[in-house]
Amino acid sequence: MRYDVVGVGIASLDLIGVAATEPQLGAKQPLSIWIEMGGGPVATALATIARMGGRAALAGAVGNDPYGARILAGLREAGVDVGAVSVRPGGSHIAFVLAEPGRDRRTVWWHNDQAVLTGLSLDRDLITSARALLIDTHMPDAALTAARWMRTTGGLIMIDAERVRESTLELLPHCDLMVVSERFGREATSFAEPWEAARALHSRYGRLALVTCGVEGSWCAHEGELFHTPAFEIEPVDTTGAGDVFHGALLYALLRDTPLREAIRYASAAAALSCRALGGRGSLPTIGEVETLLGA
Amino acid sequence: MRYDVVGVGIASLDLIGVAATEPQLGAKQPLSIWIEMGGGPVATALATIARMGGRAALAGAVGNDPYGARILAGLREAGVDVGAVSVRPGGSHIAFVLAEPGRDRRTVWWHNDQAVLTGLSLDRDLITSARALLIDTHMPDAALTAARWMRTTGGLIMIDAERVRESTLELLPHCDLMVVSERFGREATSFAEPWEAARALHSRYGRLALVTCGVEGSWCAHEGELFHTPAFEIEPVDTTGAGDVFHGALLYALLRDTPLREAIRYASAAAALSCRALGGRGSLPTIGEVETLLGA
Repeated sequence: MRYDVVGVGIASLDLIGVAATEPQLGAKQPLSIWIEMGGGPVATALATIARMGGRAALAGAVGNDPYGARILAGLREAGVDVGAVSVRPGGSHIAFVLAEPGRDRRTVWWHNDQAVLTGLSLDRDLITSARALLIDTHMPDAALTAARWMRTTGGLIMIDAERVRESTLELLPHCDLMVVSERFGREATSFAEPWEAARALHSRYGRLALVTCGVEGSWCAHEGELFHTPAFEIEPVDTTGAGDVFHGALLYALLRDTPLREAIRYASAAAALSCRALGGRGSLPTIGEVETLLGA
Repeated sequence: MRYDVVGVGIASLDLIGVAATEPQLGAKQPLSIWIEMGGGPVATALATIARMGGRAALAGAVGNDPYGARILAGLREAGVDVGAVSVRPGGSHIAFVLAEPGRDRRTVWWHNDQAVLTGLSLDRDLITSARALLIDTHMPDAALTAARWMRTTGGLIMIDAERVRESTLELLPHCDLMVVSERFGREATSFAEPWEAARALHSRYGRLALVTCGVEGSWCAHEGELFHTPAFEIEPVDTTGAGDVFHGALLYALLRDTPLREAIRYASAAAALSCRALGGRGSLPTIGEVETLLGA
């Protein structure tokens, strides 16, 4: 068994600016800070797992542009194996993220190239050698292939789903753990309340469904039970990537046989700690830091 | 005489995204196009002059980050001499530019590092060897030094002023040509109408004052005369940098002894042609292209 988790999803280069004035469209405005950092749901979740000592690999693709090289360098630095990431003709996923100090609002403009993200050849041995597979919804054909392979080995499959697309709904029946945004829960089930959405997803697919609600914590429906886990109260510097860290930490905790409720608390603590600095990977917590927060 | 024009001002790396949906703050939104291109008022004006066959050099500074290297590479590619550009500890000027198709509205978030832009040592021989000096308002101490040196040689001094700051008003008395935005004209003179502002600046400083008004053309006050020059009617792909191209083309036309009214028409044509492609330097026109448009 070579990896704890293999991920199939996008890896992004996030250009993060902190607004120095109240943002408005149609104007020229200064930023007080500008940083560049790797991002992307699966990629940052894998970086979280690596930070906690797990063996993580990404099976995805970047473009053959300078952004791709920087994305790969960032993942390598984070301890994620990128040997199975294809470098393909086209543009890498890139995002400009506008953060606003003292306000949990972010504006993101992103770009990627479908030619880079679709029709990807995956390494079946790599996928099936892992104990778990983590997918997002940005490379649905590759994610579906990987999930089908993983299903045959009995490895754990987690999906991080943010927005409903037809291809996303096709992925859900293959997943053991559906960890979805509040918006996804609402759109996929037509239930306005996250706890209703969690229950509906759980009863529809018969698998664990967890709906994340940011500062409002999360609702989990599993084996007929429904429970809420509060978020940790923090003064966030930047919430970029907190959800991605939650996914990585939750999956890794479950792989270490942490009981479900504890694992969710562990993931909440990790997500809170990741908000201490700017960018999705600016303050990835160690296991020790998470345990300290949990013990407090 | 080594250069036609030496410029003192910022050189930027512009990251330009084209909105695929109606922009809104607080959302995640796709971009249909993402490109990277050098920008900055003086830098793009110099690239325009080089494109037209002029000898142009930048005396400025970039940070010692990867953005700085790309800014310099872009200027070299454009034929601008960057031998006198300092690479200093800190961040380069960078901007995210959001363009909206079919609409003359752009949103810009920019960042730079005052440590890079202030306290710069300039090469007096370089500045005074040129026939003309072009300054903007982003490096006021360096611009003031350069203008004072240039004054002693009798070379032409043009300022591109966009916003009023105290340091900008200090620069104006040293300039032969004040080519300013409508907003600057309004703020510097308290006159709402651009023709009034041009006349007021001209009478205050006794030098040529030209107020640019985008698609509304420009108003010029010079030697007691006041006249309007219309803009060329075009279907712009992107107006980023059109003003910078106007400045470069106007200065270069004047250096080639083009009569003033003709030189302004020449600059208007060059600015219009620069809107044919995305980015400030995406379609810098040649002299032949400008003459073709003027002859039509």
